[in-house]
Amino acid sequence: MGAAFQIMSKVRDYELDMQGIVNNGVYFSYLEHARHEFLLANGVDFSGLAEKGVHLVVIRSEMDYKASLKSGDEYAVSVAVERLSKVRFGFRQEVVRSSDKKLCVSALVIGTALNERGRPYLSPEIDALFGD
Amino acid sequence: MGAAFQIMSKVRDYELDMQGIVNNGVYFSYLEHARHEFLLANGVDFSGLAEKGVHLVVIRSEMDYKASLKSGDEYAVSVAVERLSKVRFGFRQEVVRSSDKKLCVSALVIGTALNERGRPYLSPEIDALFGD
Amino acid sequence: MGAAFQIMSKVRDYELDMQGIVNNGVYFSYLEHARHEFLLANGVDFSGLAEKGVHLVVIRSEMDYKASLKSGDEYAVSVAVERLSKVRFGFRQEVVRSSDKKLCVSALVIGTALNERGRPYLSPEIDALFGD
Amino acid sequence: MGAAFQIMSKVRDYELDMQGIVNNGVYFSYLEHARHEFLLANGVDFSGLAEKGVHLVVIRSEMDYKASLKSGDEYAVSVAVERLSKVRFGFRQEVVRSSDKKLCVSALVIGTALNERGRPYLSPEIDALFGD
Repeated sequence: MGAAFQIMSKVRDYELDMQGIVNNGVYFSYLEHARHEFLLANGVDFSGLAEKGVHLVVIRSEMDYKASLKSGDEYAVSVAVERLSKVRFGFRQEVVRSSDKKLCVSALVIGTALNERGRPYLSPEIDALFGD
Repeated sequence: MGAAFQIMSKVRDYELDMQGIVNNGVYFSYLEHARHEFLLANGVDFSGLAEKGVHLVVIRSEMDYKASLKSGDEYAVSVAVERLSKVRFGFRQEVVRSSDKKLCVSALVIGTALNERGRPYLSPEIDALFGD
Repeated sequence: MGAAFQIMSKVRDYELDMQGIVNNGVYFSYLEHARHEFLLANGVDFSGLAEKGVHLVVIRSEMDYKASLKSGDEYAVSVAVERLSKVRFGFRQEVVRSSDKKLCVSALVIGTALNERGRPYLSPEIDALFGD
Repeated sequence: MGAAFQIMSKVRDYELDMQGIVNNGVYFSYLEHARHEFLLANGVDFSGLAEKGVHLVVIRSEMDYKASLKSGDEYAVSVAVERLSKVRFGFRQEVVRSSDKKLCVSALVIGTALNERGRPYLSPEIDALFGD
């Protein structure tokens, strides 16, 4: 497989906690934002799907916190996908500090798509995204 | 006028910033939560209205930050309303630290209600709430 | 084992996302807040320790999202601890909707404590908490 | 006066509320982030100052919400400063949607600097920033 999709960004001071580091909960948001950008770059509009009643949902997340980001740090968030079953897909994601390529967070986020009746439903564009 | 509506709560550590105090932006959320509870207690369901296409929106906020909340602090958020015009209403709100009754934030939040076409529209229950 | 520690709370509307449900990232904050309250109830002050240079940190989180909380929902967050190794401890946590006891999130959060030099260090009060 | 300092960014979906628009409270964070970047670009490091015991604090904010940002929107946040008194300074800020230059939020944020004893104290680099 080729290089993973990634977005670059910079820590915002309101994301820091009293320890002066990015609060653990914020990394989940970083990862979510990167997934949505990845989906959009691949023709899947999370927001547009939600309006049509197709909800992409996370059913499990596993996150390993290896190092902390601080004020001023720039970072990359990567996204790579894999099919886990007919209706489940996984996102392998990493948050890497730009200055020294230090791995800060490594994650596996597992999702599915639900239709308006709450049943698993992968629309054609989602299905195409995760391949075979 | 009688006593203002108020809710009680406690600082959550993830709301603190690197200065070890509740981040200024978080107070806006405290105030919003108290307004929604106030509305609900008066028969106006923000969430239910949004689903029906009636959006309560904030058009202006004025906030004075007098003192800071820290880890472990309990606080009260009060709400009092006044009619500002046919389609605008004001919420006078305060955040007060419970231990010593210290005023932390004093605010005026001005809102209106919009219908699905984005025009000001005060539904009967909202209209009743803000009196004459 | 006895009953787990738990806190009760209510969804705040600013925690909802465009799908009208509590954003997945917010559950991490719910869990963190419950852990800090649990620690405090057991004589371990997260904030006070941080000021003394002892940092309780999360090194891994596993979260299963089973059902969603919505506007108006009340919920309980439970905390139970177990020792995983000499310097690692685990928090088993659940978020349960109060109205119907529906399990919304089930989590295992693994942590350690670091001293000012960034080395694992369980202070006596932390050590006592996690037993043998 | 010349062009104001500005940063560009893009809405992150976790910043949206159940109305599908950026939650009002989030704009405060956008403004704070832009102020910190402005300060940094002018040699004033908010985080570094906090570690030295000099705290830049907001004492009042006035925000007018004119239009809403949605999923996918790019925006600019501008910062211009003015001296309000010996120890108070004001930030004039705007959030403008990039696609159509629509003004979304207009704000005046008033701040001061406090030393370790909580007394107003403008360090030389802060003093220089706000001119005469």
